[in-house]
Amino acid sequence: MQISPANVIGFSTSSKGQKTFQSFNPILNQEIEHSFFEATEDEIDAAMKLAKKAFPILAQTTGKSRAVFLREIASLLETNRAALIHHYSLESGLNAERGNVELNRTIWQLETFALTIENDNWDLLQQDEADLVRLPNPKPAFRKVAFPIGPVVVFGASNFPFAYSTVGGDTASALAAGCPVIVKSHPMHAGTSNLVAQLVIEAAEKTGMPDGIFSHLNAVDFEVGTQLVLHPNTKAVGFTGSFAGGMALQKLAQQRDEPIPVFAEMGSLNPIVILTEAMQHNGEKIALQITNSITQSAGQFCTKPGLLFVLRDNQLDNFLNELKTNFAAVKPQCMLHPNIWKRYNHGRETISSQENVATWIEMKTEKPNFGTPQISQTDGKTFQQNQKLQEEVFGPHSLLIVCEDMSEIQSCIQSLSGQLTASIFCSTEEMKSLSNILFDLQQIAGRIILNGVPTGVEVCDSMHHGGPFPATTDSRFTAVGKDAIWRFLRPISFQNFD
Amino acid sequence: MQISPANVIGFSTSSKGQKTFQSFNPILNQEIEHSFFEATEDEIDAAMKLAKKAFPILAQTTGKSRAVFLREIASLLETNRAALIHHYSLESGLNAERGNVELNRTIWQLETFALTIENDNWDLLQQDEADLVRLPNPKPAFRKVAFPIGPVVVFGASNFPFAYSTVGGDTASALAAGCPVIVKSHPMHAGTSNLVAQLVIEAAEKTGMPDGIFSHLNAVDFEVGTQLVLHPNTKAVGFTGSFAGGMALQKLAQQRDEPIPVFAEMGSLNPIVILTEAMQHNGEKIALQITNSITQSAGQFCTKPGLLFVLRDNQLDNFLNELKTNFAAVKPQCMLHPNIWKRYNHGRETISSQENVATWIEMKTEKPNFGTPQISQTDGKTFQQNQKLQEEVFGPHSLLIVCEDMSEIQSCIQSLSGQLTASIFCSTEEMKSLSNILFDLQQIAGRIILNGVPTGVEVCDSMHHGGPFPATTDSRFTAVGKDAIWRFLRPISFQNFD
Repeated sequence: MQISPANVIGFSTSSKGQKTFQSFNPILNQEIEHSFFEATEDEIDAAMKLAKKAFPILAQTTGKSRAVFLREIASLLETNRAALIHHYSLESGLNAERGNVELNRTIWQLETFALTIENDNWDLLQQDEADLVRLPNPKPAFRKVAFPIGPVVVFGASNFPFAYSTVGGDTASALAAGCPVIVKSHPMHAGTSNLVAQLVIEAAEKTGMPDGIFSHLNAVDFEVGTQLVLHPNTKAVGFTGSFAGGMALQKLAQQRDEPIPVFAEMGSLNPIVILTEAMQHNGEKIALQITNSITQSAGQFCTKPGLLFVLRDNQLDNFLNELKTNFAAVKPQCMLHPNIWKRYNHGRETISSQENVATWIEMKTEKPNFGTPQISQTDGKTFQQNQKLQEEVFGPHSLLIVCEDMSEIQSCIQSLSGQLTASIFCSTEEMKSLSNILFDLQQIAGRIILNGVPTGVEVCDSMHHGGPFPATTDSRFTAVGKDAIWRFLRPISFQNFD
Repeated sequence: MQISPANVIGFSTSSKGQKTFQSFNPILNQEIEHSFFEATEDEIDAAMKLAKKAFPILAQTTGKSRAVFLREIASLLETNRAALIHHYSLESGLNAERGNVELNRTIWQLETFALTIENDNWDLLQQDEADLVRLPNPKPAFRKVAFPIGPVVVFGASNFPFAYSTVGGDTASALAAGCPVIVKSHPMHAGTSNLVAQLVIEAAEKTGMPDGIFSHLNAVDFEVGTQLVLHPNTKAVGFTGSFAGGMALQKLAQQRDEPIPVFAEMGSLNPIVILTEAMQHNGEKIALQITNSITQSAGQFCTKPGLLFVLRDNQLDNFLNELKTNFAAVKPQCMLHPNIWKRYNHGRETISSQENVATWIEMKTEKPNFGTPQISQTDGKTFQQNQKLQEEVFGPHSLLIVCEDMSEIQSCIQSLSGQLTASIFCSTEEMKSLSNILFDLQQIAGRIILNGVPTGVEVCDSMHHGGPFPATTDSRFTAVGKDAIWRFLRPISFQNFD
């Protein structure tokens, strides 16, 4: 497979722009040779026009035929695994092991949506039989059916070059729903993204899908994203990234004559509460789980635990020692890009510099782009008084908050804004008196985990990957699992048919 | 029952304001004696604070106990039917027959949501069993459960004093979900709304619901609505009314630090296509159905058919004569308020004054507030060229568009924006060649009706009352039927519990 510098507009390619850019190898700390043509206004318009034209054709294909298309993509990803993983690692600094796990997950996501839509009645939501003798008026028959909302713009995520980018969860669920997809590729992994895009097009041609159901545009500039969101043919947007980025898209979408839904997943602090008996019985195991959850893939997950709430009690010192021992054994890992590394260092230093905050660093590295794992420590009172301590630090950092008692933990939790996840480690005995705190966690989070860590998001039917604002722009929808398809469908009632 | 001039703030009443207003009897064309205290800033804040306090208590009640509460409201509405209908007719000009139908529907809506939530597992969305021997990692157990989003502000609708106001579909579904409701009553029927509010409070006290789950605020001023939407405790908004009103609320909701969903149902043209063989076989019946659908309750329905597409063929004259005969027999009816009557006259006169538009008025009335039924007629070409002909006229008016052929009908439909409904009258034979036009209707509408009219919205499981923008602000949710509850719920996944 050859990386192409061109934009992919349906079954054609296009390189009309003057501006090019390169992606970056963070391990070697240097640019990668390939360059990419930034999409022009005309190219964006061409992709959106083609998507509009393709929409009625795609929407009228059967779920079964779209399932064949999704499985063909999956199969091509598998066939080209070696080339994909190679470029993935070059452009992201993530190792091949992580690349393989992520590619497996991407393939499984495609399979999940294929399974969802290959059933004959997958789109039948409800049915009412006619009652022609009802008084005072006969009741007509009704069938409520799911219908695709139209072309969807998907923004690639920096931290998931496979699973949340080109043909990740957003794209797979939109295509499954019957919506054409226009990907604005993430510039940090433009090459990997281009390879995947070529495979999607190959699969579309092989399985007889119409031209225009998938386009792939290169861009460093925010202007390209702006034009895509403002284009009248765009009917929804999928995004995973920063709060600032997500909110910028949300505001653009609301400025349109026709406002459209933006599904932005914008990060989270993912608080974990660890209680005394859990520490006492399982402290060693918990400390290891938490260390891995904070530091794996350099902590570059939206579900990385960023807050650890513990009680000031006789178990604490032991637990902190365990945590420190584990942190001392963590090998610093390369981060995705120098900009992300700089932002990480700025973020962890900001936390460290706050009053009443102590910092432990067990394994410092000066290597460019490698993230130094760090735990900061404060008390419950300071945490509630200083809003800066609630800012997400994207990378291998977590803030440990030592509280005086359960009611202080509860106040801290009540002070938090919306989160993707919240976790609690406790014994069966402790669980019995936790109903208040559990309810508080439900008020802020989209997923509650008992005796487990939030990373390693399971792709299953009952996963909810979402949560109250500012974790996402719409807490009622999930970005992971088969229900992600409902973001891109709307119901239509057919009255009096058959 | 006595109408109170006060605002209802949970279990208390409050009349702190300086400003009062009265509602209006459109039949007598004069103000009604009762006056109402406009809610003050402090009263709005008090209602929202109480709602926030009540939320965790309400959210932790069982569906069963909320079903008891909803049924108690229904029972009190029934007991006080006479007083309610009396004030309803005084304030709306709608007759007792319509009042009774609407009250029955309101009671049935409460029963629908009671039935939905009294089942033990009504809120269980999905479940995954644990698989502890799975490789490479064990799979934890998951339960995905629906959780209420928080206090909901409901704006009363002018045209449904019972079914889409105080304890109509929005309020009933929000309370069923476990969300406190703050109603901004519609000033045109402030008295009826106050009576209903008193019954909701009586039912809440009787069934042990917490103080603050329901408040009822009087207002003429848009400022009150603004403050309610901007209040940080508000988590969603329900609205039925004009495009301008709905969009103003939507924009306010997006200006907040935390944007919130607005479910605004903003009107629709509800196109009907009537084909040749249908006219030939059933012309008489269809003409009568359509006449009633346009003129009943003075055409003051969001599903009133505002566009009638027909072919210029040998059946047309007969059909038009039938329609005229029926219109000649329609008794003009009183409209809700002088402002609505004035807007109606302005709207129908605007349509009449366009080039290439003819107007038939068979039964003109000069009586103040009584709506003159009117059909305007144009051709397909004019319709597509003049955007003014696509503006909704709220009242007993419809625009008949005579097209040269099916492809002109199709172009007209493709020029339409989002609609709540679209209908088609055709023979079984004609149906066979309609797949293109049916698909075009699906692209613009939330409900497609075969050989029937859009008014008389059935409250059933497979009803979808919604549609693409600008018919509503979110086409994925319905305002009618049990699925209306999903507007006010978000999923939470519980991982590793039990």
